[in-house]
Amino acid sequence: MRISDLSRQSGVSIPTIKFYLREGLLAPGTPTARNQAEYDDQHLTRLRMIRIMTTVGQLSLSAVREILVAVEEKGLSREGLCRLLSRALAEEPTVMPPEPVERAAAQERVDEYLDHLGWRVDPAGPDRATLGRVLAALQALGWAGDIDAFAPYFRVAEELATQELTATPGDVVNDETAIQFVAQALLHEVALVAIRRMAREHRATLTP
Amino acid sequence: MRISDLSRQSGVSIPTIKFYLREGLLAPGTPTARNQAEYDDQHLTRLRMIRIMTTVGQLSLSAVREILVAVEEKGLSREGLCRLLSRALAEEPTVMPPEPVERAAAQERVDEYLDHLGWRVDPAGPDRATLGRVLAALQALGWAGDIDAFAPYFRVAEELATQELTATPGDVVNDETAIQFVAQALLHEVALVAIRRMAREHRATLTP
Repeated sequence: MRISDLSRQSGVSIPTIKFYLREGLLAPGTPTARNQAEYDDQHLTRLRMIRIMTTVGQLSLSAVREILVAVEEKGLSREGLCRLLSRALAEEPTVMPPEPVERAAAQERVDEYLDHLGWRVDPAGPDRATLGRVLAALQALGWAGDIDAFAPYFRVAEELATQELTATPGDVVNDETAIQFVAQALLHEVALVAIRRMAREHRATLTP
Repeated sequence: MRISDLSRQSGVSIPTIKFYLREGLLAPGTPTARNQAEYDDQHLTRLRMIRIMTTVGQLSLSAVREILVAVEEKGLSREGLCRLLSRALAEEPTVMPPEPVERAAAQERVDEYLDHLGWRVDPAGPDRATLGRVLAALQALGWAGDIDAFAPYFRVAEELATQELTATPGDVVNDETAIQFVAQALLHEVALVAIRRMAREHRATLTP
């Protein structure tokens, strides 16, 4: 198909497609004439994927680029893809406060707890640090709890992750399935957050 | 305490405190001399709350302002606070794609499902729309599932929300407890997302 058909079928404007081509997010089409190229279904799929990640998934274009480049260069495992997505999401601009002493203690509790559960999680990954910060922040707000209070979260998260990974195709056989895996993980996360917010609103109307 | 003590104890710089004062995010102190004012523990608590919401909670300053203003003007119920937080979070800049036909069908399924569950959720709230978009996006990626596939998410989210709301003080007796309620909801959400990402990474190493 021509670029105009690609644009029509994907809903992405021609200037945006040209921008993605220049930035290497989309592979060039097959040249057919001077200033003309032929695109196929793979281009359409890739374009849909980029669009979903940046809109519904709210990833920045630089995070999407990081994912696409890593997938193409390294052909990652599912575990590698999970780490990649965590890093890409954590890359979003955030101003973190200077770390107080309590933060170190909270972080230690988080790391101990993960060890205790036997979870294999990147020691340098951003999610451990995020959880340490949350724990320190809750304690700074006068909350007397400890990481144990999050036990139901750990249980539920593991349950959902197991279901999802069983439901998603196990093999990351090529770049497209790898990117699809990342996009699905991202969309499931957006869904979980939205559902949790609604659950909270609903329960708040019921719980005295 | 003086502004310098407030800064030392909160870890927020004096220029930032002055900015919050000018913007009305922080109530003025009691004037003690020309260009001097006395601050108390309420100022310290409020300052910590603003800081946690903008850093660990990753809310924009305008979203924090929206929350503080609404709390002060309306003294909301817990349900109202949940809606307020959802709207403040959804306010973050996002470029949404034009809505294809499939989006309307997906949205209808989401609304039907919420009715079927009997969840009382703001009909104009942003989370319904987010979930409709996720469903349409997953279907656009070739996923054959329906909203039913998210049944475990709904179950788990309701379970967590019930636990949290039981654990948090039920009464939103004043502005400070209201803001604390919002900050805790926000922190719990950040924790859930981090834990879910780690669970996924961990399970990806185990699930073949």
